[in-house]
Amino acid sequence: MLAYQLIERKRNGRRIEPGEWEELIAAYLRDEVTDAQMSALLMAVYFRGLHRDETSALTDAMLRSGATLDLSHLTVPRLDKHSTGGVGDKVSLVLAPLIASLGAAVPMMSGRGLGHTGGTLDKLESIRGFRTRLSLSETQAQIDRIGCALIGQSEEIAPADRRLYALRNSTATVESIPLISASIMSKKLAEGLTGLVLDIKRGSGAFLPEVERGIELAQMMVSIGQRHRVPVVALITAMDRPLGRACGNALELEEALHALLGDGPPDLMRVTYALGAEMLVLGGLAASRDAARRAMEVAISSGKAADKFREIIDAQGGDAAVVDDPSLLPQAAVCELYFAPRAGFVATIDPRRVGFGVIELGGGRSKPGDPVDHSVGFVIATRPGDLVREGEPLATIMARDAAGIDAGRRALDEAITLGDEADYPLELISHRVTADGVMPYESSDTPVELAAQP
Amino acid sequence: MLAYQLIERKRNGRRIEPGEWEELIAAYLRDEVTDAQMSALLMAVYFRGLHRDETSALTDAMLRSGATLDLSHLTVPRLDKHSTGGVGDKVSLVLAPLIASLGAAVPMMSGRGLGHTGGTLDKLESIRGFRTRLSLSETQAQIDRIGCALIGQSEEIAPADRRLYALRNSTATVESIPLISASIMSKKLAEGLTGLVLDIKRGSGAFLPEVERGIELAQMMVSIGQRHRVPVVALITAMDRPLGRACGNALELEEALHALLGDGPPDLMRVTYALGAEMLVLGGLAASRDAARRAMEVAISSGKAADKFREIIDAQGGDAAVVDDPSLLPQAAVCELYFAPRAGFVATIDPRRVGFGVIELGGGRSKPGDPVDHSVGFVIATRPGDLVREGEPLATIMARDAAGIDAGRRALDEAITLGDEADYPLELISHRVTADGVMPYESSDTPVELAAQP
Repeated sequence: MLAYQLIERKRNGRRIEPGEWEELIAAYLRDEVTDAQMSALLMAVYFRGLHRDETSALTDAMLRSGATLDLSHLTVPRLDKHSTGGVGDKVSLVLAPLIASLGAAVPMMSGRGLGHTGGTLDKLESIRGFRTRLSLSETQAQIDRIGCALIGQSEEIAPADRRLYALRNSTATVESIPLISASIMSKKLAEGLTGLVLDIKRGSGAFLPEVERGIELAQMMVSIGQRHRVPVVALITAMDRPLGRACGNALELEEALHALLGDGPPDLMRVTYALGAEMLVLGGLAASRDAARRAMEVAISSGKAADKFREIIDAQGGDAAVVDDPSLLPQAAVCELYFAPRAGFVATIDPRRVGFGVIELGGGRSKPGDPVDHSVGFVIATRPGDLVREGEPLATIMARDAAGIDAGRRALDEAITLGDEADYPLELISHRVTADGVMPYESSDTPVELAAQP
Repeated sequence: MLAYQLIERKRNGRRIEPGEWEELIAAYLRDEVTDAQMSALLMAVYFRGLHRDETSALTDAMLRSGATLDLSHLTVPRLDKHSTGGVGDKVSLVLAPLIASLGAAVPMMSGRGLGHTGGTLDKLESIRGFRTRLSLSETQAQIDRIGCALIGQSEEIAPADRRLYALRNSTATVESIPLISASIMSKKLAEGLTGLVLDIKRGSGAFLPEVERGIELAQMMVSIGQRHRVPVVALITAMDRPLGRACGNALELEEALHALLGDGPPDLMRVTYALGAEMLVLGGLAASRDAARRAMEVAISSGKAADKFREIIDAQGGDAAVVDDPSLLPQAAVCELYFAPRAGFVATIDPRRVGFGVIELGGGRSKPGDPVDHSVGFVIATRPGDLVREGEPLATIMARDAAGIDAGRRALDEAITLGDEADYPLELISHRVTADGVMPYESSDTPVELAAQP
């Protein structure tokens, strides 16, 4: 009757106590609470929400349902970044080696493509031989040795989250801020971090398009971090257009390699540096965000960051030669330019449509377990606000065959709209959320008045 | 993905179409929709409600999931009454033989005790040998022969409702007006009725205590009836105190026998006659409710109603001698009077506390499958509003042993409160709900002005 009473209580809008969450999750894993009861509770949570204390208790119960990385013997800061997911978002691939090259331990657990969004694991697996499934002890040993591991969620970590996530995915209870927060934070806290940076996407291609909801999610996760004594900083970034130019697994990996070698597209670099600066300051590896940015620029220009990526690829069984020769990545059989059908200003590049386009090309999954063709995708050279001529090449479509090219062209026809007036996309990085509150994002720590002085 | 989309749509407050309800229920019975998905949907329905079209479609889908009684060859009206459940409510035991004795077919499917409320089947099983489990064909044959059967819900009828009901019961999704309506109506429509009368309880002992919610439920069921071309009339009756005097299985059966023989307590008779009058008018067996009442009085005073009960008991394997000799019913080992602890006005006789008291005596179930002692219970002689002296006997406790007497005394101590001023209980029958709307209840069809004329 425990489960019944807790469902009824939440349904009526009242709180479930920390000890009760603990007991509930434990009973669920022992199959004493049914999936039906749990999904009724999740739906009640969808409608009633959870208080911060409850979200923190649920996070804790899921965290304690499994093993955790033990990195407490390390003297260096242990840092990670999590993104709520987007299209063309290859920041993790750049950031993990970059921050590890500056002295932090980066135990980065990532996911696979979900819905229209890409997944870091799928992108990494474009590299021949790269293993994303490491055991907990392999992961610990690799981090001890080279400071970074890029892995999937281990079976040992937060098994309650894995079961609940599958349940939410089949019962339309995914879109709940406390449930999303608890799910993410239970896994991130299992990494034994000393600091966490979040990239919360906003805009049409984001999981939560409205900025208010994104901020709410950020605040919830910052609060959970506080209760678990892990400082968390969140940046709200734009996902009303893809990030960078490449969309598709190997294409994105290649763009990440360019970024590590100093030649990344400006929007990708801005987001990467902004998130990296927060990580380095959180970890005490830089005195200010400005100093952090300079350190990251040096790590890239000196080749240190690329070296770290070679080390990681090598440690995880991949062919590190790919860093210097991206043509070793899977190459699409056919590629074709996509031309502007008319003159005008680029009004939108709909990331959701682009993301589903990659799936239609075979580069993502319609259902779990589908095979992924790493070679296919788009490279979109234009940005919202650009003025283009009729017939000007806007993108390249990489496909398996002519039918793929046709599908890709249809996707871009729908994703890219041209208008007669310049329309402005969302600000790339708009807000910064910390335990102190929500502030408009400023890229520099130096107050503008001071910086403007001679 | 069908189920996912329907859950998501309902969660977002939009409608599910009739064909989709049909498909969903069919897929659920084929185990293609999981219990977890169904319970998430039920919880979304709890929060978002169902439109009348949806409730009707769900009712229809559950109705069609199983067999139905085929009584279409009968020329007489086919009538039933359903109550939302109360304490001391033995109306069905009186009404079924009474209405059948006046020429209607009464295929009455009843339930067992649930929560604090008693169940007609449990009361009938106080009669030695009485079988409440008849097959559909046995039921049809008995109705053809004697016009009435008093049975439990057959396995063949509305299997989808049975599965959904069990699911709701474990996931705190019972208290939803559209779900309650669809559940009741799918079973009642399966009886192949030409008219249905509902007794919707209000007050502290009712499933839905607030009269507004009771009226909403009544309106929903009247509307479902309309869409299935079965006229439905609902009366809202008081359950802020037990109905009649007896609470407990054999005790209530005995009181019902007294009622059939012309010696029932006034409140029980008023409710029975009011519901019976609606049935007879719906069935075209009486021209007015006043005429119906006179016909029922004659059926009782002439012994026709009691004769019909003998026939029914006999047909279902019970010992019909009980009608003339209630001492053949199970008798409690110990009985003791309960005295007023002080002088004052009877303020409340809490039906919920009395109902749980019967369960504590062994006369009901704490969980499904518990054995039931038919002999135990209470006979409460006093009514709310009565002025009593200290030490005056208010009730009799029937129990298995001295510990039972103690438990019964504690229950009555809590259930019966005495105050210094007369407090008025709820009106016994307050509203009448039909397809024409909600009206204050008037027991007579004859307008008061006319009746008052000499």
